[in-house]
Amino acid sequence: MNEPTKLRFGVNYTPSRGWFHHWLDFDLDEVRADFDSIAALGLDHLRVFPLWPIFQPNRTLIRPRAIEQLVSLVDAASERDLSVQVDGLQGHLSSFDFLPAWTQTWHRRSLFTHPEVVAAQEEYLHVLASALAGHEGFLGMTVGNEMSQFASAPHPDPDPITPGLADRWLRRMLAACASGAPNGLHVHAGYDATWYQEDHPFTPAQAARLGAATVLHSWVFNGTAQRYGPTGTATEHHAAYLIELSKAWAREPHRPVWLQEVGAPAPQVPAGHAAAFAEATVANAADCTDLWGITWWCSHDVSRALADFPELEYDLGLLTCDRRPKPAGVALARAAVGWRERPDQPQPRRTALVLDQNRRVEGRLTCAPGGTFFESWMALTEDGARPAVVLAERSTDHDYLTERGIAELVTVGQVRPIRAAGASGRRNATGEAHP
Amino acid sequence: MNEPTKLRFGVNYTPSRGWFHHWLDFDLDEVRADFDSIAALGLDHLRVFPLWPIFQPNRTLIRPRAIEQLVSLVDAASERDLSVQVDGLQGHLSSFDFLPAWTQTWHRRSLFTHPEVVAAQEEYLHVLASALAGHEGFLGMTVGNEMSQFASAPHPDPDPITPGLADRWLRRMLAACASGAPNGLHVHAGYDATWYQEDHPFTPAQAARLGAATVLHSWVFNGTAQRYGPTGTATEHHAAYLIELSKAWAREPHRPVWLQEVGAPAPQVPAGHAAAFAEATVANAADCTDLWGITWWCSHDVSRALADFPELEYDLGLLTCDRRPKPAGVALARAAVGWRERPDQPQPRRTALVLDQNRRVEGRLTCAPGGTFFESWMALTEDGARPAVVLAERSTDHDYLTERGIAELVTVGQVRPIRAAGASGRRNATGEAHP
Repeated sequence: MNEPTKLRFGVNYTPSRGWFHHWLDFDLDEVRADFDSIAALGLDHLRVFPLWPIFQPNRTLIRPRAIEQLVSLVDAASERDLSVQVDGLQGHLSSFDFLPAWTQTWHRRSLFTHPEVVAAQEEYLHVLASALAGHEGFLGMTVGNEMSQFASAPHPDPDPITPGLADRWLRRMLAACASGAPNGLHVHAGYDATWYQEDHPFTPAQAARLGAATVLHSWVFNGTAQRYGPTGTATEHHAAYLIELSKAWAREPHRPVWLQEVGAPAPQVPAGHAAAFAEATVANAADCTDLWGITWWCSHDVSRALADFPELEYDLGLLTCDRRPKPAGVALARAAVGWRERPDQPQPRRTALVLDQNRRVEGRLTCAPGGTFFESWMALTEDGARPAVVLAERSTDHDYLTERGIAELVTVGQVRPIRAAGASGRRNATGEAHP
Repeated sequence: MNEPTKLRFGVNYTPSRGWFHHWLDFDLDEVRADFDSIAALGLDHLRVFPLWPIFQPNRTLIRPRAIEQLVSLVDAASERDLSVQVDGLQGHLSSFDFLPAWTQTWHRRSLFTHPEVVAAQEEYLHVLASALAGHEGFLGMTVGNEMSQFASAPHPDPDPITPGLADRWLRRMLAACASGAPNGLHVHAGYDATWYQEDHPFTPAQAARLGAATVLHSWVFNGTAQRYGPTGTATEHHAAYLIELSKAWAREPHRPVWLQEVGAPAPQVPAGHAAAFAEATVANAADCTDLWGITWWCSHDVSRALADFPELEYDLGLLTCDRRPKPAGVALARAAVGWRERPDQPQPRRTALVLDQNRRVEGRLTCAPGGTFFESWMALTEDGARPAVVLAERSTDHDYLTERGIAELVTVGQVRPIRAAGASGRRNATGEAHP
């Protein structure tokens, strides 16, 4: 976090053989070969994913051998100048939930509030962080991949909690990481329900205020690509929008933001357009200040020999299963070269759209694809305004606005209506193309 | 199955280190040391339990290395003259459910009826059986440990099915085992809801007619020990009762019966009484004809370092976690010596209690602890009658009765009322002792 002008480019590591089930057949040579193919793209960091039930199969058994394997993986990455973020609680990956037997069925206990479960999660994160602390290249821990998914519908069997309890859980998990590795870049990561879903217990304030950076996962299959088309402004600026939206909620004007997951999902983004989507997404995100880095999802395609993945999950890799670069991989490698060594931060955004969420009945939904706030921000973007976002309650705090470089405030009511679908290359609400 | 007079004595293998999580850290030397301690008791067979999500983590990935480890385990047992039954689908073990991610939450599909799940189970059982076929000491496959638990309440999240569909599923699973190992002792195993629970989709007819033997799991924590006390007739004869009850449902009069699980659960059977319980249970079961063998639950205690097991599960071992024999282990070893080489089958049971279940509204409940049929059978036993059981619809089939050696039929109405609690050393309904 000490070199804010050096934009980091990395990838979420999906093992080329056996996907995350590779932990069951851990083979460091296979891992090394995967890392060689990632390093060849010129990337600088990885995000890696232990599987919780394999690492902690019993509440009081954290397998030493699994920890050793994780450490050897981090060291292998470091040897290739790849630094590593480690996600603890998986939890959820690509439609599959990996939850230990001691949290399910006869042992069903809330993942967020049961004292024994939460204490065991703390211990697990502490043990992982302790084992990794001091290893060169270890960045820090992410509490888990989108654990927020387990807290609310549409999960088919959620553990409901309140925002207050979610807050408490996040603080405890982050403290557990810090207790093991005091200087780590410890963060938490939710999916975009945090920003878009009414009544979701994980909130924008938590995302923007807890942990060492604000973490964002930007997925245009959330309705954006369907509604605005693969080349629509909203699609190509979705990640940048989340970055700016999140910055409104941060207390510190220059809190770092990490675009920790972003990818080009087919068919919403057709395979032939993946490279262009990657270029546009990176360029638009990199035009936001205080961006720590961009971590693409994902490194390697999922083998078609593995069943039951949603169709879009198979082909998200920058590399094929046999470790050859795909067009999006080449595009990201080129973008990394171009953006990483830029001498300065991008210019501050002088115009900010005011988010008056607290006074709206609809709450977060206005920020979601199709929402008024979302579309107003995109309309300003199309007009070339490079909009930031400011919360209404901070819109009279001149010191704050000055620190952020904001000189002009715009309200939703002042923004021209969004153009009709097709008028600017956008698509209609069904996602079908208007030539 | 060719030596019906040689009663087999074995044990359900619970690894002394890491319990069934040992598959994640498979160590053949540890396994060998466990098997040495079992062989030292003079036992002749094991039942072993792969964990399904570890062996088949993706629907189309059955891990070759896991299969190799299983084969090496079977070979290690064989080197110690221990033959091995392999259960496929675990499934359920000691209160924990181990279900692959591809059958849960976002991928929730019936374990018994979804075409893709069932086909994958078939493939899994086929692959296991194929790998083990021809290995000395391999007995056969059990479809899975008490998969019937997943079909009905009290499971907290069951996959309900009909008896017809359960029948179809069992036939497919058994056929898959046979396709991999044509000469194996392939069986299926349910818990005692099969015999006792109204409307349970797994039925007595399936238990007694599908597979190479009728398999029984006898657990007196099902209300029997609580109601009749640790030394009550019903407690010491519970296994024998299940054997005789099951024989009523078999088409072939001399179909083998395997008492595949029986154990001494504390506190229902106090630790100090475990050896006496084992001796009595074995003696009473061995007094039934056509018994193939007795397989105690379990080999080694569960380490107290592992959390969340029901209290009774920790101390069921014949051996401690550091592989020293416990009193029940010594008792079973002694019983094995005494019973294994008996020259003949026990004498046929001349008196049979007629089970008129089809005409009863209450169905199976009459057979359960506290039920009229259950208590009538126990009353006859106390009177020294050595009762068998015959279904009402076969009670006029003289050839059948002759083949079974049955000369006298008794109906429930003819049996004296069960004695008052305490009158014969039994306990009252709360399980408290009457001195």
